[in-house]
Amino acid sequence: MFNVRDVDEVLEIIDENFAGFPLGKEKVKLASASGRVTAEAVLSREDVPGFNRSSVDGYAVIARDTNGASESLPAQLELVGEVKMGEKPEFDIARGQAAYVPTGGEVPAGADAVVMIEYAENLEDGFIYIEKPAAPGNNMVFAGDDAKRGSTVIQAGHRLRPQDIGALAAMGYPEVAVKRLVKVGILSTGDELVGIEEEVAGAKVRDVNSHFLYSELIRYGAEPVPYGIIKDGYERVRDAVSKAVEECDLVLVSGGSSVGQKDETYRVIHSLEGCEILLHGIAVKPGKPTIMAKVKGKAVVGLPGHPVSAYFIYRVVVRRLLDAMYGVTQAREPYLVAEMACNYPSNEGREEYLPVKLETVPGKTLANPVFGKSGLITLLAAADGYVRIGRGVEGLAAGQRVEVIPF
Amino acid sequence: MFNVRDVDEVLEIIDENFAGFPLGKEKVKLASASGRVTAEAVLSREDVPGFNRSSVDGYAVIARDTNGASESLPAQLELVGEVKMGEKPEFDIARGQAAYVPTGGEVPAGADAVVMIEYAENLEDGFIYIEKPAAPGNNMVFAGDDAKRGSTVIQAGHRLRPQDIGALAAMGYPEVAVKRLVKVGILSTGDELVGIEEEVAGAKVRDVNSHFLYSELIRYGAEPVPYGIIKDGYERVRDAVSKAVEECDLVLVSGGSSVGQKDETYRVIHSLEGCEILLHGIAVKPGKPTIMAKVKGKAVVGLPGHPVSAYFIYRVVVRRLLDAMYGVTQAREPYLVAEMACNYPSNEGREEYLPVKLETVPGKTLANPVFGKSGLITLLAAADGYVRIGRGVEGLAAGQRVEVIPF
Repeated sequence: MFNVRDVDEVLEIIDENFAGFPLGKEKVKLASASGRVTAEAVLSREDVPGFNRSSVDGYAVIARDTNGASESLPAQLELVGEVKMGEKPEFDIARGQAAYVPTGGEVPAGADAVVMIEYAENLEDGFIYIEKPAAPGNNMVFAGDDAKRGSTVIQAGHRLRPQDIGALAAMGYPEVAVKRLVKVGILSTGDELVGIEEEVAGAKVRDVNSHFLYSELIRYGAEPVPYGIIKDGYERVRDAVSKAVEECDLVLVSGGSSVGQKDETYRVIHSLEGCEILLHGIAVKPGKPTIMAKVKGKAVVGLPGHPVSAYFIYRVVVRRLLDAMYGVTQAREPYLVAEMACNYPSNEGREEYLPVKLETVPGKTLANPVFGKSGLITLLAAADGYVRIGRGVEGLAAGQRVEVIPF
Repeated sequence: MFNVRDVDEVLEIIDENFAGFPLGKEKVKLASASGRVTAEAVLSREDVPGFNRSSVDGYAVIARDTNGASESLPAQLELVGEVKMGEKPEFDIARGQAAYVPTGGEVPAGADAVVMIEYAENLEDGFIYIEKPAAPGNNMVFAGDDAKRGSTVIQAGHRLRPQDIGALAAMGYPEVAVKRLVKVGILSTGDELVGIEEEVAGAKVRDVNSHFLYSELIRYGAEPVPYGIIKDGYERVRDAVSKAVEECDLVLVSGGSSVGQKDETYRVIHSLEGCEILLHGIAVKPGKPTIMAKVKGKAVVGLPGHPVSAYFIYRVVVRRLLDAMYGVTQAREPYLVAEMACNYPSNEGREEYLPVKLETVPGKTLANPVFGKSGLITLLAAADGYVRIGRGVEGLAAGQRVEVIPF
């Protein structure tokens, strides 16, 4: 019934089917642009900085005039003025002349270097005595050094970080063109599910997946659209999923994806007009009963109902799907190197994700597996991150170095 | 004039002065709770799950009844019913009996294990044939396994992650008590600065720091309060900083912090009523001319005007200050291990932060230094992360393994 793929195959399927997903663009103000993905390359429309700038407090000079200068035999230069911050100097520097320039001030025309005040003596006699030779360009930032007019400063398909916002500000862009947010429908199916404010009577459990998925999607930079809990029933689930596919770019359906639940989600997704099932089952633990389909170009993912399984499928599969839809480069996730605190057997023939708690001891960091039964969300609340155990790896030994990806 | 501290001393000063900063609390809905810091411990107010649950599709049995069972000699048990998802079973299991239970369904009273369907044969004769012995507890999650009523599931002072939101949902909390957001005033000073929408005439430059700080603070989970650009002038800057200190918990003043700008920011901060200067200068590169003060219990930081310097001081100092004010444990930042692509000399006697661009080549990742002059924000826009070079380290050699902290 399952047609199980390993993780690398899944990532290939994602790229083949959803890279270049058509997303419109919109202009947003810088204050809300962080985390958004650029829709087009950003070129500098002016030289930044717009003038030759001093990077120190010092004296603008012609470098040749300081040749051979030393403490015992300083170069004596005529002091012709003082540059004020933010103002254009009203004089040039000619051979034998110098002028004071503050950090960030404009270096007067004619000068080609700045000597730090530490290496200059001002005897208040109309001259300045330079005690160290300068090379052309010393302590100067030239016009256009930061960004030349017309040069690409930020590529298209780049997720904007705060420093990119800073660069946009430096170039005088109050707004930036970004891709529209991916709309992600969230549905939880199952007769056993009740809402967060309801009593859990009988054999009911509360819907967990809708809530963490909502938070993850906000954190990622997508637009979650919650459709709530859908009670089991082919027609009911089909109507809800169809509506979500119409209204969203990506639909996440939790539950009903295992063989035992009679694969209702599979049958529903399979029945949608224009549906192509891309995979049914992933060789990972936890999270095997996962479905991915393309419906009229949109993405539909059937997530396991168990929260821990759904969580890892979100991290490993759905985030990569979002990366592909936004067209951003998939960067490796950063990690912390730690030592396994104990042995952990794993020979499932499936890639495994092991939640761990980090413990700092003298000289190293230990990774303690957080053991538990699939489905227990407090397991993840107690963990700091997880270790990826490759498909062919038999297990982890106490003391072994592992890479922990923080949550 | 400077009283320079090294980074470890700075972090100690932060903890001594701002840990336990008084922040009120407020209740927020789960949908907006991610990234917020808990104001109190969260206890489970019920057992989660509330009933003994099967973690597989299978047959609820009394483990003893399956002793010695094998494929050739299965244990024959009377099939007394089928449990429906989300419904309480209306029967118990007695010796010699079994019942079908779906994944997530309630295990009937009397049963102490579940046998997976793969190890049971149903010949439709009213009996079920178990082909493998079960141990008590097999394939079951017991009531309270996830969280026992009254147990602490989330500590106070914990920054909520999506999986914590999931745990809160599982426990039936639609809201959670979190600490009020730290209000952070942002001011940029300097006659050379102009706003993002203004023309950069003469020797003017655009204000960059306000913009990236705003984005960083949103990303961190604080409440930025922009006060704009303040032209130089002791009284003007003093009035603006005083107002910000009144209205905020933390005030970030960019610019005017170097000796050359006549230390105006220092003099302003020093003049504030009840001010205690905690440090003036940090032994880091870039970012040395940094000021930190406590004014009536609130924090004031004078950041360097140069964007790259201000950026690193934000990352290394201001974020730790926010951690202390929120009372969250300072976790190590995750990193990527890479090899230096070239030599990089560094013997400044100061801790140095080197922006790098990562390059993937067969078998490894290379870290290429992004060279540039302090103050150039496009330097950071072009980098993927940075390498921290310790104070006593003379430099980095090509091929040396380094830890790259991604931006």
